[in-house]
Amino acid sequence: MTTPTLTIPNSYARSQEIFDRAVRVIPAGVPGHLGPTEGCFIPRGAFPLFSERAEGTRFWDADGNEFIDYMCGYGPNVLGYGDPDVAAAAQAQARKEDVVSIPSSIMVDFAELLVDTVASADWAFFAKNGGDTTTLAIMTARAATGRRRIVFIEGYYHGVAPWTQKLDYPGVLDTDVQGNIEVPWNDVAAMRRVFTAHRGEIAALIAQPYQHGNFFDNELPAEGYWSQVRALCDEFGVVLICDDVRAGWRLDLAGSDHHYGFEADLICFCKALANGYNVSALCGKDSLKEAVSSITYTGSYWMSAVPFAAGIATITKLRQLEAPRLFRELGTALTSGLLDVAASHGITLVASGEPALFYLRIADDPSLMLHQRWIAECVRRGVFLTSHHNHFINAALTMPDIARTLDVADEAFRAVLAGATA
Amino acid sequence: MTTPTLTIPNSYARSQEIFDRAVRVIPAGVPGHLGPTEGCFIPRGAFPLFSERAEGTRFWDADGNEFIDYMCGYGPNVLGYGDPDVAAAAQAQARKEDVVSIPSSIMVDFAELLVDTVASADWAFFAKNGGDTTTLAIMTARAATGRRRIVFIEGYYHGVAPWTQKLDYPGVLDTDVQGNIEVPWNDVAAMRRVFTAHRGEIAALIAQPYQHGNFFDNELPAEGYWSQVRALCDEFGVVLICDDVRAGWRLDLAGSDHHYGFEADLICFCKALANGYNVSALCGKDSLKEAVSSITYTGSYWMSAVPFAAGIATITKLRQLEAPRLFRELGTALTSGLLDVAASHGITLVASGEPALFYLRIADDPSLMLHQRWIAECVRRGVFLTSHHNHFINAALTMPDIARTLDVADEAFRAVLAGATA
Repeated sequence: MTTPTLTIPNSYARSQEIFDRAVRVIPAGVPGHLGPTEGCFIPRGAFPLFSERAEGTRFWDADGNEFIDYMCGYGPNVLGYGDPDVAAAAQAQARKEDVVSIPSSIMVDFAELLVDTVASADWAFFAKNGGDTTTLAIMTARAATGRRRIVFIEGYYHGVAPWTQKLDYPGVLDTDVQGNIEVPWNDVAAMRRVFTAHRGEIAALIAQPYQHGNFFDNELPAEGYWSQVRALCDEFGVVLICDDVRAGWRLDLAGSDHHYGFEADLICFCKALANGYNVSALCGKDSLKEAVSSITYTGSYWMSAVPFAAGIATITKLRQLEAPRLFRELGTALTSGLLDVAASHGITLVASGEPALFYLRIADDPSLMLHQRWIAECVRRGVFLTSHHNHFINAALTMPDIARTLDVADEAFRAVLAGATA
Repeated sequence: MTTPTLTIPNSYARSQEIFDRAVRVIPAGVPGHLGPTEGCFIPRGAFPLFSERAEGTRFWDADGNEFIDYMCGYGPNVLGYGDPDVAAAAQAQARKEDVVSIPSSIMVDFAELLVDTVASADWAFFAKNGGDTTTLAIMTARAATGRRRIVFIEGYYHGVAPWTQKLDYPGVLDTDVQGNIEVPWNDVAAMRRVFTAHRGEIAALIAQPYQHGNFFDNELPAEGYWSQVRALCDEFGVVLICDDVRAGWRLDLAGSDHHYGFEADLICFCKALANGYNVSALCGKDSLKEAVSSITYTGSYWMSAVPFAAGIATITKLRQLEAPRLFRELGTALTSGLLDVAASHGITLVASGEPALFYLRIADDPSLMLHQRWIAECVRRGVFLTSHHNHFINAALTMPDIARTLDVADEAFRAVLAGATA
């Protein structure tokens, strides 16, 4: 590796000024996982708080600092920020119509494209949040089976509706979550025990296609796991829901269930579905079409035409690019490079999960502080990584971007090991 | 009244062709309240199913039929479809950024504008659906009070989350709704009885600012109703939630609670907030800022910058136009004209609710069929009304549009009374 150009760590004076205004008029200033205290666990001073512009794989913050962004808006940026083909399709639709008193015919075009693309999709239902689709999925399973209980994988995240939160979370009632049952990931025997103990009570199993939660190495399905789970669900009459909100469109355009060799009954999409335009979709099998039709479920913007046009352009371009293969190649080049850089400093970096959504951890770092300091030094030098959440690859990322990232990672390790700014 | 130009009733061959495709790939073809069988109760053949273009107060369907639209996308169209000022602001923001890994500073600008505009807003929290904000409101009330029960007004609608559905609806569990208590509208004594019987158990009262449900005349608050309800909530420590999703921005830019002379603790906005761009907001008092901050609540697109830019442009223009006064004048001119037209045929038409969101009913029509046939004849002639739901006025509506509407209404009554097409 060549000696990297030394970078001057960013400062965030303008971000801080805006944040000082934000805390007066917005709860927590920046709520949720995009905020300075949640999700990222990056020391506050290392982290930009407000963005001004984004293009391709980069954004520029309120202070004018430039970042190569590996969070991709926490998923939506799949083709590159402001992708020109998607933007052109969206603008053309916006000149015609968006939210009208009856839907645009482009809704049907988009549904047909999803049915044509996603292996387990006989139909598509559109909404706005990933959580709109996971909630509709469990309601559909309950309507179809006449049962109440939902089985989750330990460490689950399926949105913020009360039914998918935890008992001790503020605002959540015991009755919201009391029917929930958790089973460990990759443990078919445990799932059989639960299905047997609660025979006739379980409406659905909801699971991400692989274990990609926060604060632990991401885990792929064990050989045969999904085919055995599919068989178990069939045996016990349990609806199998694939929550593909996070991984969808990055592993396999036919669905992450297809990628792992099974067919879900219901599959949930959001995030990368339209390159950031606001739309989500529940797709599913014909066997559940009558049940899903019976649910009272609608929203103010659910038939916005512009996101449908953006979704059609996004999926069309993902197909043309053979994007999942590209993401695997880019993600593998990046993570193997990062592991080499770490090793050159005597540090063992662990990359887990799918390369398109890689998760990073420094080994032998039980306090997590070495990892957090290294991430902070990367961010301060213009590579936007995060500490304990998976990352995302987008199609605008290039090999020169990756080379630049490795240079910054190297410099960040040197800064950390020299006890520099943290 | 001059003799109207006779119109040729629309045909919908192309809409029907698209619907035939839709039912194959979308549950129910067109789901929810925009579908041919729900909400509108217009005989199927009278009703366009798919739109192709919209501008100002009009849309054009898939067959090229033109409509003066009084549904306004069920609320979002408040300035006119494709309003050029909102579109310009949205496009300018889209050229900069939309969904990025950290929020745009325009989120803070929008929150500041809401706090500056809405009387009961000390802060603003952004999401995507009206239901995201009603759910956050009840979770916040539960977190703040440590209580579980929610009080509703009979005939309520606050979105489609399980907690706000009904016991016999498909996919809903008894535990989702078992703490709900309903009280009649405009009945302070009944509310006091419920508050007393459940003292210390009630977290919140959630209500629309006036009774604007479906299938009954809409009812304004009785003199003194809201001030007495506000006092009751204070006495019993109940959080008062104003669901302004439907009426918001049409009655009073400072909030519909302000319009009726009270201050809610929490107020929910969606629909007209950004003229159709996809954003909702929960606003509230500082006394609940810590509680709302404690809730785990986030979504994939909740910090999209383009809808924030559209929202700023929408509220700015609504202020410039003094839009609520305009809506009242236009709505009053329209409904008084419609009543006169009906009377000229010996029919008593009843308009209820606020003129900006007028609700229509034909008196002495217990089967509702005369009303539905008249609405159908209006729609077939290019005036998009609906049968048993309130309508919406937008700022692009003109007095010539209203004159044209009255001509069509007159012709529709003649067609109905002659026993013509229905």
